[in-house]
Amino acid sequence: MGIAAIDLNCDMGESFGRYTLGFDEQMMPLISSANVACGFHAGDPHVMRRTCELARQHGVGIGAHPGLPDLLGFGRRAMSVTPGELRDYFTYQIAALRGFAALQHVKMHGALFDMALRDAALLNAMCHASWEAGGDLIWLCPAGAAAIPARRAGLRVAEEFYADRAYHPGLRLVSRRVPGAVIEHEDEVRERIERLFDTGTLRTIEGDTIEVCFHSICVHGDTPGAAGMARAIRDICAAKGVTVRRLGELDL
Amino acid sequence: MGIAAIDLNCDMGESFGRYTLGFDEQMMPLISSANVACGFHAGDPHVMRRTCELARQHGVGIGAHPGLPDLLGFGRRAMSVTPGELRDYFTYQIAALRGFAALQHVKMHGALFDMALRDAALLNAMCHASWEAGGDLIWLCPAGAAAIPARRAGLRVAEEFYADRAYHPGLRLVSRRVPGAVIEHEDEVRERIERLFDTGTLRTIEGDTIEVCFHSICVHGDTPGAAGMARAIRDICAAKGVTVRRLGELDL
Amino acid sequence: MGIAAIDLNCDMGESFGRYTLGFDEQMMPLISSANVACGFHAGDPHVMRRTCELARQHGVGIGAHPGLPDLLGFGRRAMSVTPGELRDYFTYQIAALRGFAALQHVKMHGALFDMALRDAALLNAMCHASWEAGGDLIWLCPAGAAAIPARRAGLRVAEEFYADRAYHPGLRLVSRRVPGAVIEHEDEVRERIERLFDTGTLRTIEGDTIEVCFHSICVHGDTPGAAGMARAIRDICAAKGVTVRRLGELDL
Amino acid sequence: MGIAAIDLNCDMGESFGRYTLGFDEQMMPLISSANVACGFHAGDPHVMRRTCELARQHGVGIGAHPGLPDLLGFGRRAMSVTPGELRDYFTYQIAALRGFAALQHVKMHGALFDMALRDAALLNAMCHASWEAGGDLIWLCPAGAAAIPARRAGLRVAEEFYADRAYHPGLRLVSRRVPGAVIEHEDEVRERIERLFDTGTLRTIEGDTIEVCFHSICVHGDTPGAAGMARAIRDICAAKGVTVRRLGELDL
Repeated sequence: MGIAAIDLNCDMGESFGRYTLGFDEQMMPLISSANVACGFHAGDPHVMRRTCELARQHGVGIGAHPGLPDLLGFGRRAMSVTPGELRDYFTYQIAALRGFAALQHVKMHGALFDMALRDAALLNAMCHASWEAGGDLIWLCPAGAAAIPARRAGLRVAEEFYADRAYHPGLRLVSRRVPGAVIEHEDEVRERIERLFDTGTLRTIEGDTIEVCFHSICVHGDTPGAAGMARAIRDICAAKGVTVRRLGELDL
Repeated sequence: MGIAAIDLNCDMGESFGRYTLGFDEQMMPLISSANVACGFHAGDPHVMRRTCELARQHGVGIGAHPGLPDLLGFGRRAMSVTPGELRDYFTYQIAALRGFAALQHVKMHGALFDMALRDAALLNAMCHASWEAGGDLIWLCPAGAAAIPARRAGLRVAEEFYADRAYHPGLRLVSRRVPGAVIEHEDEVRERIERLFDTGTLRTIEGDTIEVCFHSICVHGDTPGAAGMARAIRDICAAKGVTVRRLGELDL
Repeated sequence: MGIAAIDLNCDMGESFGRYTLGFDEQMMPLISSANVACGFHAGDPHVMRRTCELARQHGVGIGAHPGLPDLLGFGRRAMSVTPGELRDYFTYQIAALRGFAALQHVKMHGALFDMALRDAALLNAMCHASWEAGGDLIWLCPAGAAAIPARRAGLRVAEEFYADRAYHPGLRLVSRRVPGAVIEHEDEVRERIERLFDTGTLRTIEGDTIEVCFHSICVHGDTPGAAGMARAIRDICAAKGVTVRRLGELDL
Repeated sequence: MGIAAIDLNCDMGESFGRYTLGFDEQMMPLISSANVACGFHAGDPHVMRRTCELARQHGVGIGAHPGLPDLLGFGRRAMSVTPGELRDYFTYQIAALRGFAALQHVKMHGALFDMALRDAALLNAMCHASWEAGGDLIWLCPAGAAAIPARRAGLRVAEEFYADRAYHPGLRLVSRRVPGAVIEHEDEVRERIERLFDTGTLRTIEGDTIEVCFHSICVHGDTPGAAGMARAIRDICAAKGVTVRRLGELDL
């Protein structure tokens, strides 16, 4: 038994005009799915075209990564938008990216994760826009509770695991404000992934062992060590006989 | 013989957030094609959804009305963008509007008309993006020289006539800075349209009589008298036996 | 005894580029202090210059009306900004308006009122930026609890009363979601103001009588009936012997 | 005879939100005047505060660096703004930066240089706004023709020299499209500066020797080699007995 194939996803296309962000050129050959910014919290039409071209060159699945209309805050500041507003922001951004590529998936950006967990109407609005956008778009979201309403909305769902973040039971992420929330030693990150591949479980910050069902590992693309970490994960996959495939090729 | 059917087009969906612009509710029942702003020079995702719904209710053909990324200047200020930048702005905006409706046509906004006439590379970039967007999009542009490169680019082209603007020979519009450029008396506008329907010609500002081939009349939607003028044009059409049909139903 | 003089304040300069909002020309002769938008939630440099000129023509005191960086939401959507971010937004906006006029006061816009009441650190950040801006700026805020931290921060404080909003005890505003929160009949608004001038009290939505200390009445400028209401308030002032003076001329 | 003191100026504070641009920390100790972006083409309120603090720590003179309202194009794309619009953009941006620091000078950014040379009304509008802003602001501009209207407008003027750009007679810059426009070898840049200090002349791209009167050398801050080049210029100054002083301390 065990995991036969996983996806590696990474945020991409976050540059804007004269401003460069992320190591897209180095990361793209190492991942299988790209979450591409759509011009609200980051990205611009030219960056979107270039990022989609780069993804196609490397056979990487392309997903929309819609965010809040807050370039200054990079979409990381919660805003009291209505469900109707958020639905329309998703419809707009998903559609805009489709001008540059056929899409595989949708993944919320930044503050939207927390907003979705706190307000079901907002999560439903985002799911609804993605479902309405058609094309059998996969909804990529954190493993755990967030996946349930998406499935209920009729979406194909892929769950992702954060290799460098500590979890509570119930797969709730430990807040970044808590010491130990982010696992900084590469060795420890490797161990977690190996354990996950071997046993399907992880140890929570409280020390409990819990099961994790996931389809994708989220890797960072905006730190100097990002490519090294992605390569390390691919090496573990190779050693454990786990194939890296894009979301659209997985059995969801 | 004479004209059997024409289209009436109008700029729509130019509101933004708290700001309302245009008399969309009054105008929509009177026109056959709507040029919908796409969020760069005007419009926002919510306005776009609402405008497309209104158009569908009235059987009006929906077109993308892409503009320069200059909300402060309403897309009316020429900017030295490159052809590649402009192509990507068109791709983005056309695609974004497609999230809300199936599209019939594309029409440049604001300063892009002059920029297109002065720089063929820019016009080609816009045509290319529209062609690339597929779906048999009609390129709606001023009657005359601007139509030629669009046809060469493989686009279906519809030419529009401005009932309230004076023309030079060769169908060049008289600059707004010239006295007499804008025809303000409604009676004179009516006469021009009647003459056009009867004879297929108009009188230039210099007094010459020239032939005009056109498929659509552009009406304004942002002045208090706009609905009255549109109704007057429909009355002339009825009197002359000219049917008002949306672009997609015309023989282009 | 009783009230000898009050200020009438109104939000002004909320137009943006091609978009017009508010009846600034009609309202300016009727008020004594103008809260001028500074380019974040509304307003642009040209509108700011024009609005300040109009205010000076009518001897109206000019205040900065800083808002959140959210033109699309008109600054009415709460955002999870940090105190440091908010302080810098205030410093920037207050200073920018000073390029066009000498300033009399500062007043928060939109969602900032609620954010200030819920998070003292945010209120302190705004007060601090206003104090740091110097020039003896008056802090104009809702009568009641919000005035206390501003006084503690060393600011001269003016408290304002909303003639058309219902209050709870403690001068807390009734939420707009509650029926009766907004008083729509002009007669009822008049009565409240007359009672206030005569007795210094108002009746809460619960029916209690409470005392109100205030220096300014906030009038709306963006509804068709706005000028009529402002004129009615001036008539009551005249009838009761209350002079209308700008904040800077009041004894705060 | 010869030059006793010069200023070294550099564009600073061009980061925006999550986006970092330029090597401000390394450059600030090496320069004497900083041109600080004001939030239109680059910069944001938080970046502005931080940049001004950094400049004060190093005794660097602070100048406003106003640009076009085009963050996406980094203010490098000409826009057909009116003189009145441009004046108001300058008034706004200069004033906004004053919220964070006392200002020494003003310098146009990006496409404004070319626009100023082609349209005297635009140059006059910018000069007028700077003069109106008061405080004895120095107008820092390219050595040559651009300085004349500024002096006529009553401004104190400082002229700057580009060490790495080729010149035509009349101190016109060679267009970047011409081969040889940008001098890439550090040795050649050094030679030019030494020659300039020794003889007050430079060799044009055509080979003529012309005199240059200047007060400041403009150094770049956004390339990996920027700090090295700035250090090299300071070494030449030391060797030639030329003191580096901020603009406000020079005899203009």
